[in-house]
Amino acid sequence: MYFSEYKIRVRYSDTDQMGYVYYGNYASFYEIGRVEALRELGFSYKTMEDDGIIMPVLDCYSKFLLPAKYDELITIKTSIKELPRVKIQFSYEIINEKEQLLNIGETTLVFLRKESHRPCRAPEKVIQLLKPFFE
Amino acid sequence: MYFSEYKIRVRYSDTDQMGYVYYGNYASFYEIGRVEALRELGFSYKTMEDDGIIMPVLDCYSKFLLPAKYDELITIKTSIKELPRVKIQFSYEIINEKEQLLNIGETTLVFLRKESHRPCRAPEKVIQLLKPFFE
Amino acid sequence: MYFSEYKIRVRYSDTDQMGYVYYGNYASFYEIGRVEALRELGFSYKTMEDDGIIMPVLDCYSKFLLPAKYDELITIKTSIKELPRVKIQFSYEIINEKEQLLNIGETTLVFLRKESHRPCRAPEKVIQLLKPFFE
Amino acid sequence: MYFSEYKIRVRYSDTDQMGYVYYGNYASFYEIGRVEALRELGFSYKTMEDDGIIMPVLDCYSKFLLPAKYDELITIKTSIKELPRVKIQFSYEIINEKEQLLNIGETTLVFLRKESHRPCRAPEKVIQLLKPFFE
Repeated sequence: MYFSEYKIRVRYSDTDQMGYVYYGNYASFYEIGRVEALRELGFSYKTMEDDGIIMPVLDCYSKFLLPAKYDELITIKTSIKELPRVKIQFSYEIINEKEQLLNIGETTLVFLRKESHRPCRAPEKVIQLLKPFFE
Repeated sequence: MYFSEYKIRVRYSDTDQMGYVYYGNYASFYEIGRVEALRELGFSYKTMEDDGIIMPVLDCYSKFLLPAKYDELITIKTSIKELPRVKIQFSYEIINEKEQLLNIGETTLVFLRKESHRPCRAPEKVIQLLKPFFE
Repeated sequence: MYFSEYKIRVRYSDTDQMGYVYYGNYASFYEIGRVEALRELGFSYKTMEDDGIIMPVLDCYSKFLLPAKYDELITIKTSIKELPRVKIQFSYEIINEKEQLLNIGETTLVFLRKESHRPCRAPEKVIQLLKPFFE
Repeated sequence: MYFSEYKIRVRYSDTDQMGYVYYGNYASFYEIGRVEALRELGFSYKTMEDDGIIMPVLDCYSKFLLPAKYDELITIKTSIKELPRVKIQFSYEIINEKEQLLNIGETTLVFLRKESHRPCRAPEKVIQLLKPFFE
């Protein structure tokens, strides 16, 4: 398993009139979680896109346990539990400063060639970087 | 079962650099779907909030089949498949102008008293309005 | 002068914890205003982009007079006060159901070729459609 | 003059199909700039709100010089050029990693009592913290 964590601060623009983070904004937190997890591993999502491979989301599941609130410094814990092939799965846990679990999520993404929009295997580089965590 | 549909146009601000609607924005489409489904039924989410009951989201599932694109007039089809009690479930299907199914979703929400943040039963009014669809 | 108006409903996702529409979301309302103004004129922004011309924003000014609130049906009034050349200016007024003026805005956009990112003249079609309003 | 800077990374959700940061998202960058400028000074916007004073935006001006792009680490430079009274003005400059100036902005905000929505003077604490920079 590969695991990484990243902290972000909740913005005013993330909140809604309930005084909570709007539920749709967690998708953006997950995006930050997975992009930073890959960056920490040594892999740049941006470079992959520049090289012609995009990674759209196939499905997303979120469970909202406690609300995240304005100005909280939240931690996004991202895990990859299986070596990716054509698809890659990320799991997320979001906690607040009091270490309360606020949210859990799961996303599946697929590797696609930008030109043809055809599925392809995960780039060799990301496989090589992830392999040591699955041995 | 109660069923309702509502059309919205994809905004430029909904897109990302893939040229698709950003996956996090579907949550906002679901919100529109359920609020308009309730309005069509004769029930105003806003009035309920003004009366002291809020309805935060407990969980959300999305499956992305085909991308929604800029300027498309998409239809959000919202269903309530069971009479709500303390929780209410909505199911969504989003189709484009060519009637292609783009996205399916599910959300569970809970009725809470605004003051105490304690769960409560669905307001009597929404139950009365929904009942005829479940007989 | 060319003038057009368009109604939209404020979404929950538009609000922030002040209970107002977040100030950054007016930019998206302006976008809707200008795109729908052009559509009503007979000109599709999307088709223009598909034909290789994009229209990025050069500057934006907003004055917030009264807050827009959740579930309000607001009217975006959009004006073009001069025939565009390489640039085009739009003015906006947003009012609520009580006809209170909530917001005024101004944006300048530039016509650019998508490939070269070089400025170009407004498409002949939009000029022809706008001309009768400036005679 | 009081000056502060803060770095953020452009998210995928910030982009639009032009491949640029959507123009409406700069408002959120300005919000981060001013909140972090106040935090660095020793003043918490959140605490002020909890104490019953809110700070809605009265006007906002943005000039877009060069596009910010996905995954760039941008720097938001925030200045307060005058001691606030009932209103406070912030000026912003946003630069990319190559030190190119991408955007300049200005916002005016007003101090309001949360209960009455009546304007009030800037909290004594923020005045005391800012004063040394204006002597």
